[in-house]
Amino acid sequence: MVGEEKKTIISIDCMGGDLGEQEVLKGIEKAYAKNRSLFFLIHGVGDTMPNLLKKQKRLSGAYKFIHANQVVRMDDKPSQALRRGKDTSMWHCLESVASGEAQVAVSCGNTGALMAMSMVKLRKIDGINRPAIAVLWPSTNPHGFNIVLDAGADIKADSQDLHQYALMGMSYAKSGFNIEKPRVGLLNVGTEDHKGRSELQNAAKSIYESSKVFDFDYIGYVEGDDIPSSKIDVIVTDGFTGNIALKTGEGTATLVRTLLKETFAFSVMARIAALLALKPLRSLRRRIDPRRVNGGVFLGLNGTIVKSHGSADATGISAAITLAYKLTQNDFQKNLAKKILSHKNN
Amino acid sequence: MVGEEKKTIISIDCMGGDLGEQEVLKGIEKAYAKNRSLFFLIHGVGDTMPNLLKKQKRLSGAYKFIHANQVVRMDDKPSQALRRGKDTSMWHCLESVASGEAQVAVSCGNTGALMAMSMVKLRKIDGINRPAIAVLWPSTNPHGFNIVLDAGADIKADSQDLHQYALMGMSYAKSGFNIEKPRVGLLNVGTEDHKGRSELQNAAKSIYESSKVFDFDYIGYVEGDDIPSSKIDVIVTDGFTGNIALKTGEGTATLVRTLLKETFAFSVMARIAALLALKPLRSLRRRIDPRRVNGGVFLGLNGTIVKSHGSADATGISAAITLAYKLTQNDFQKNLAKKILSHKNN
Repeated sequence: MVGEEKKTIISIDCMGGDLGEQEVLKGIEKAYAKNRSLFFLIHGVGDTMPNLLKKQKRLSGAYKFIHANQVVRMDDKPSQALRRGKDTSMWHCLESVASGEAQVAVSCGNTGALMAMSMVKLRKIDGINRPAIAVLWPSTNPHGFNIVLDAGADIKADSQDLHQYALMGMSYAKSGFNIEKPRVGLLNVGTEDHKGRSELQNAAKSIYESSKVFDFDYIGYVEGDDIPSSKIDVIVTDGFTGNIALKTGEGTATLVRTLLKETFAFSVMARIAALLALKPLRSLRRRIDPRRVNGGVFLGLNGTIVKSHGSADATGISAAITLAYKLTQNDFQKNLAKKILSHKNN
Repeated sequence: MVGEEKKTIISIDCMGGDLGEQEVLKGIEKAYAKNRSLFFLIHGVGDTMPNLLKKQKRLSGAYKFIHANQVVRMDDKPSQALRRGKDTSMWHCLESVASGEAQVAVSCGNTGALMAMSMVKLRKIDGINRPAIAVLWPSTNPHGFNIVLDAGADIKADSQDLHQYALMGMSYAKSGFNIEKPRVGLLNVGTEDHKGRSELQNAAKSIYESSKVFDFDYIGYVEGDDIPSSKIDVIVTDGFTGNIALKTGEGTATLVRTLLKETFAFSVMARIAALLALKPLRSLRRRIDPRRVNGGVFLGLNGTIVKSHGSADATGISAAITLAYKLTQNDFQKNLAKKILSHKNN
């Protein structure tokens, strides 16, 4: 069953999403409808899960359900989650990747707990201090997005960590998205050399040195408004700043979408206008929809983990699964490890 | 001349804006057209300034030009600016406030230099460690915006600084915008109590204690996507995070405005749609236009300084001047000092 030829096996933790397990299952079904080469190891808690699964008729034959007795709660501290540990759906989900049964894991559970468990279960790549979460952000680049890391794996990052994030990010851009010579920048409060904290100034020097070895462009400091721009591919920052910046951007996009809706309900004329401009308006809404690029990738571990947004709906879950699938289609993980190791020996 | 009765006297440094002095003068004219009770002390450098001023015919009789020999450059470090110091237009602009000749100052020059000079010229309010820059951010609140501080006065803030920012921010909300019981929150990577760096956890305790004394609501940790929301009035963070978050939000809003323009140029039908929905679309564009709420206020000094965005055009400059005027219309500055002092004695 699981061994069917050419299937890509994706391990999914169904627990922890804001909209419940059923929404996650709908997302799985949605992803499967688009890509029949997928097979799912579905990890969940509770007696109702098998019945919920049976309702997703179009998933029939494309999954194996693995029952867990406990769930990692959204308010669990990482240490608590680790203590509850081995009988949770999250742990089982990661175990499927560690054992080699699945090629990639997807979870919309508690980020801190997922990172802590991933570090125990998959271990860090040799030479990496702090793993990072890399997310895709809509941009005016031809491919439509930029990579931002760390988006919140760790609230701290020293200059060596930022340097490693730059290497991991450019490796992700190369292997994951075929960008030949990624443009990498450090997020700061200004572009002038003297700006920012000392760890940024030290990281800038190391990243510039590495750019000569690894064939990427270090374009220097960038500011928050450069994140959605076409002047850069990879934006490097600490997880505290990254998390807050990205959520601020999301909040702004959501505010605009709400206002846009109100705009076209404003008058009869505006409603007619909305009908006339239906197609371009839909494409605009899609373009600024944070759900479309759902999925943070944990970098720096021996195995690929995609963290879906806690509030993701079926569309978002499906996007995260599609991203996970893409990352299994080349030797991204192996290339990443190789680069970090070769850097270490440099 | 300057002493005309009931005039509000605004000191303006014309140098340092990305679009040049002429754009600043256009902004002054724009503000004056809306409010004839203003009188301007215009500080500038260069022989062409008096001629440029003469071209703004509608400003005639509403200003005094004060010539300076030097300009603070956008790439000057604060220390360099201070060294060049006393013969710059920025210094003269602040001097007009320090001497009492003007009630408020507006500048779109180098933020770091402006803050450093303000601290020398106006001095910090007794009891304040680090002054902060408070900005207004579009929100779904009835009054249309929220207050965010620190937006970049200082890249560091310890727990005591964050506590003072909360007090200054709520005081600004009360005195400046008549919000009776402002809701104050601390920007963090999650709303759970255990989240974030230790200085945030310590600040949370102090702010909660103060909320019982000063009649405001401490609503706990908030996330980046809460900044434009209606659940809060004042968002407190360090200047590094604040600067990057706000610029990311600005970048997102700009991206959406660009895409919106493209959307309605997409087809003949879409162009007709744009005509039909002209009025609500214009109001939407206005609502998400960062220029509309241009103007950061320096808090914690003995005097009011409004820092306009470096890239502000005439509309933005005019908004900053209008904000400066508003802040002279009540005893905001005196009330602020009183609150900080009474807190200190508490």
